[in-house]
Amino acid sequence: MGADRKTCDGGDVVLPFRDAVSRMTAYVPGEQPAPGSRVIKLNTNENPYPPSPRVAEAIRRELADEGARLRLYSDPTASALRRAAADATGHPFEQILAGNGSDELLALLVRALVEPGEAVAYPYPTYVLYETLADAQGARIVTYDFSRDFSLPRALFDTQAKIVFIASPNSPSGTTYPVALLDELSRALPNSVVVVDEAYADFADENALELARTRPNVAVLRTFSKSHSLAGMRLGLLFGSAELVNGVGKIKDSYNLDRLAIVAGAASLGDLPWVRDNIAKIRASRTRLAAGLATLGFDVLPSSANFVFARLTDAKRARTAYEFLKARGILVRYFDRRLLDDGLRITVGTDDEVTALLDALEPIS
Amino acid sequence: MGADRKTCDGGDVVLPFRDAVSRMTAYVPGEQPAPGSRVIKLNTNENPYPPSPRVAEAIRRELADEGARLRLYSDPTASALRRAAADATGHPFEQILAGNGSDELLALLVRALVEPGEAVAYPYPTYVLYETLADAQGARIVTYDFSRDFSLPRALFDTQAKIVFIASPNSPSGTTYPVALLDELSRALPNSVVVVDEAYADFADENALELARTRPNVAVLRTFSKSHSLAGMRLGLLFGSAELVNGVGKIKDSYNLDRLAIVAGAASLGDLPWVRDNIAKIRASRTRLAAGLATLGFDVLPSSANFVFARLTDAKRARTAYEFLKARGILVRYFDRRLLDDGLRITVGTDDEVTALLDALEPIS
Repeated sequence: MGADRKTCDGGDVVLPFRDAVSRMTAYVPGEQPAPGSRVIKLNTNENPYPPSPRVAEAIRRELADEGARLRLYSDPTASALRRAAADATGHPFEQILAGNGSDELLALLVRALVEPGEAVAYPYPTYVLYETLADAQGARIVTYDFSRDFSLPRALFDTQAKIVFIASPNSPSGTTYPVALLDELSRALPNSVVVVDEAYADFADENALELARTRPNVAVLRTFSKSHSLAGMRLGLLFGSAELVNGVGKIKDSYNLDRLAIVAGAASLGDLPWVRDNIAKIRASRTRLAAGLATLGFDVLPSSANFVFARLTDAKRARTAYEFLKARGILVRYFDRRLLDDGLRITVGTDDEVTALLDALEPIS
Repeated sequence: MGADRKTCDGGDVVLPFRDAVSRMTAYVPGEQPAPGSRVIKLNTNENPYPPSPRVAEAIRRELADEGARLRLYSDPTASALRRAAADATGHPFEQILAGNGSDELLALLVRALVEPGEAVAYPYPTYVLYETLADAQGARIVTYDFSRDFSLPRALFDTQAKIVFIASPNSPSGTTYPVALLDELSRALPNSVVVVDEAYADFADENALELARTRPNVAVLRTFSKSHSLAGMRLGLLFGSAELVNGVGKIKDSYNLDRLAIVAGAASLGDLPWVRDNIAKIRASRTRLAAGLATLGFDVLPSSANFVFARLTDAKRARTAYEFLKARGILVRYFDRRLLDDGLRITVGTDDEVTALLDALEPIS
C-alpha cells in the first residue's frame, strides 16, 4: 500500500500505486528539435548515417499487398532476427533473446532476478536507466564512484548484488573495460549476474561476447540504435547461457517485437559491410573531434564509443559551453550531476557536423 | 534467493532468479501455420481483412530517403498516435498511454500497482495473460469461477485486490458486461484499480470508455490487433485518469513504440470508416457462424467479439471436433482447461472461411 497515495476526483478512491513507483518522478523526455529544424543534433548518440538500404527494402517487402500481412501476429520468438544474429556472431541461436530495444532487455533482467529490497550494483556515473529500473523494482541500489579516469572500481569485485551492470563502453565517459577484467568480475561474483551493456561496443576494439558463451552468469546486451542506425526501430539483443536466456524469456511479452522491426533487424545484420563502413567513418571522425577539442583546451577522455566526453576546468565553464552551442543550433548533452557537471557529452556526427561544432567552440576556447 | 536455483556449467555459479520466475514454465508459442500454407487460421482472433491502405502508405512515408529517419529515436510520448486516439474517442490526450500492444500495458499496470504477495483478482476463465503477469510479479491470485452463462460473479464485488481484471468482451466466452455493472464494481472497490480489457469491444454494442473519464480507478485498454487488423504491429492504448496514466507511465520504457508503429496506429485511427466496415462484415459473419454452429448441435454463447465459443456435450466430443478440423486444415482453439474443455473458440473469418468451417463440421454433427 502506497505511503503517499492521493485522493482523486472519485472522492473515496485512492490509487494504490506501489511505494517504489509513487516515489519515482515522471519521465521527462530529452530535448528533441522540431522536425525540419536545422539543429545539429549531437545529444542522443544517434548514428549520423542512414541504415542499410536493405532495411527499407525488407520493410517494404513485409508491406506487400497493401500491408495485408500486418493483420497477423508477429513471430513471438523473432526467429529470423535471432538466426541472423547467430550467423553474425557465432553465438548459439537458442541463447539469444530479442528485445524491443535493449532497454526492454535491461528491464526484463531486473524483473527476473531482483526482489524488492535486494541489491543492484553499478559504478557511477553510468547509463541512468539502471537507476530508474532498480527504483521501479523497489531494489536497493549500490553504487561505486568511478575515479576521474573512469577505470573500473575495485570495490565492485566484493559487492553483494543480484545484478551488476557494467556499460562497456560506458556512457557518458566512452571508456571501455577489458574482457579479461569482466571475466574476472564474473568469477568473483558467482551469485550475481554481470550484465555487460555493449550498446556502443561496435565502436570499440574489443567486446565481451565470448563471456556470454563461456560464463553462465554473464549477459551481453547489444542494440541496433547506434552502429546499425536504427534507434527509431527499437531493437536489442541479449546473449547469454541457455539458462539465463530461458529464465529471462519467461517474463517477456509474447509478441514483444512487431513484424517490421523483426525484418528490419535481420536485414541490417545481413549487410554488415554497410554497418562496418559507417563505424569506420565514425571512428575516424571521433579521432578528429577528440583532437580538435583537445586543441581547444578540453580534457577529452579516450573514447571507444560514438561520442566523446570532454571536460573543462569547472562546471560553470561546461554549462556555459553547452548553452553557447545550443544558442548556435548545436545540441550536445550536459549532465547536471555529480562527477559529470564539468563536461559535455558530444555525439560523433558527420565530418561536417564535427567541423561546425569545432568552429562554433573556437571563440570560447 | 531462488529455492530451486540450478548449478550451471560455471561450476560455482548459481543463477539467482526470483522464486516467482523460477516457478513459471517457459512460454510455448501457439500454433502458427507455416508461411504460404493453405491453413484456415481461426485460432488467434486475428481480423480476416487487411488494415486500411493508409497504414502502409504512412509507413512508406516514414521510410522516405531509404529509411534515413529510422536512425533517429522515436517519439517517447507517441504524440501523433495519442492525438489521433484523442480525436477518435474524445478522451483527453494527456490521459492516454500508448503501449507496445495492450499486453505491455497490462504488464505495466501489474508492475506499477502490485507488490509481491498482494492480490490480483479476476473471474475464471478469462485471458490467460493475467495469470502469467501476476505470477511474474509474485502476486497472490484470487479467481472467481464464472457460472455456465458467464455472467459476472457477484463475489468480485467484495474482493480485496490491488487490481481486478475484467475482459469485456471476455475471452474465450465472447460475453460482455454492462457499463453500469462495471461502474458499480469500481465504486464497490475504491481501493482497487478495475482494468477493463476491451480488446474486443469494437465488435460489441457498448463499451466502458466513459468510465475511464468518470471513475479515477478504472483503466480501459484497447488494442489495434483485432478491429484495426494490426496484430503484427503491436499497438495498444490505455485510457484512464491523469493520475493513473501518469503513475503507470513512470515505469514504461522511454521509447516503447518504434517510429513505424506510431505512424501505423495514427493512420488507422484516421480511417475509421475502413475499420467500421470490417467490423460490420465480421458481425454479420458472426451471426451466420453462430446460427450455423447451433444448427450443427453446438451450444453457442452469445458473442460480442470477433469469435464465438461453441460448446458440445462433453470434452471428448470437443477435442475430437478440434482434431477433426485440424486434420482438414482448419485451426481453431481448444483449451484443455477446467470449464472450457467442452468447447471450441472459433475466430470469425471471412464468409468463405465460415462456410468452409461449417461444411467441414457437417459430417460430425
